[in-house]
Amino acid sequence: MSETAERDARHKARMQRKKALIDEKIAQAQDEYGLLLVHSGNGKGKSSSAFGMVARALGHGIKVGVVQFIKGAASTGEETFFRRFPEEVSYHVMGEGFTWETQDRQRDIAKAQQAWAVARHLLSDESVGLVVLDELNIALKHGYLELDTVLADIEARPLLQHVVVTGRGALPGMIEAADTVTEMSLVKHAFKSGVKAQKGIEF
Amino acid sequence: MSETAERDARHKARMQRKKALIDEKIAQAQDEYGLLLVHSGNGKGKSSSAFGMVARALGHGIKVGVVQFIKGAASTGEETFFRRFPEEVSYHVMGEGFTWETQDRQRDIAKAQQAWAVARHLLSDESVGLVVLDELNIALKHGYLELDTVLADIEARPLLQHVVVTGRGALPGMIEAADTVTEMSLVKHAFKSGVKAQKGIEF
Repeated sequence: MSETAERDARHKARMQRKKALIDEKIAQAQDEYGLLLVHSGNGKGKSSSAFGMVARALGHGIKVGVVQFIKGAASTGEETFFRRFPEEVSYHVMGEGFTWETQDRQRDIAKAQQAWAVARHLLSDESVGLVVLDELNIALKHGYLELDTVLADIEARPLLQHVVVTGRGALPGMIEAADTVTEMSLVKHAFKSGVKAQKGIEF
Repeated sequence: MSETAERDARHKARMQRKKALIDEKIAQAQDEYGLLLVHSGNGKGKSSSAFGMVARALGHGIKVGVVQFIKGAASTGEETFFRRFPEEVSYHVMGEGFTWETQDRQRDIAKAQQAWAVARHLLSDESVGLVVLDELNIALKHGYLELDTVLADIEARPLLQHVVVTGRGALPGMIEAADTVTEMSLVKHAFKSGVKAQKGIEF
């Protein structure tokens, strides 16, 4: 083999190894990408399950962002607990919450938009591995946010970032976009037999 | 009115006030008692939701006990995370887990009994406000524990203690005993389209 042919052969072999490596990395990237999980249904556990995933992520050293779209009025146990770790969890609750009762639709829309601006910021932060969009489905169902905008921002997130969307009444477009959809159904509920809401269980 | 009649009337009034107070306390105790929650079904979120409730309870300053009946082999994110708080969470994972693969039924039964001894201890501790019995339904379904024993110990727990039992295939007796039963159903799952399990999401 001439010196040139030998150099060409070495080059070819190197390129082949490089291509194999790149192919492997592409395959890996396709295997390991951030999932969009939706928790819907009328049962309990939609938000709790998302917060369990927050604990799981923190156990793996993954940074988390949380935006609560509804429960702004009351301080929940999860909020109190996860705010203990400001370096690991970026926790946002929308002002005083929505105003289903007061019927001030323009104020609700403004608050939802503000909340979405915070969510978009988290969805563009590569250092955040898990984003919880708690009760987002409710804001979408009421038309306070546009589904197209929301899905576009979710689609544009960092490749490895996971997103969990909770709330009953997930729109068909959200279900379509999701990797995993879980429906929480109520089989039996103590409240129906007159037991009142319990701290640490319900709120 | 004679002095005696007056004294009798005062006594009667005091007793009536006392009875009203006691009645109120009884009513309150009946209103606020520990719930037995069951998370079953083939969907995701059964355990995550229980761990979200752990976070919620901790946010309210409620002490928690956890016994994992299945996931003993792998260290999960939740375990790593909640073990950070040994003063607040008493966390127990059963040895190397069960041996579905090795078919050593006697060893499985022995391990399940050990796990139940730990659970019983938590179920008799008034300072523990929430007990998570993760994947207990699986151990019951395989007959490694007796349902009657398990339900009797759960029934005998402190009045205000909440219990969460997770795992697919909850036995009818467990559902009967529960205050709240949630069925997690799989609507759509990324794994079915070939995405592999993700750290921080699946384990």
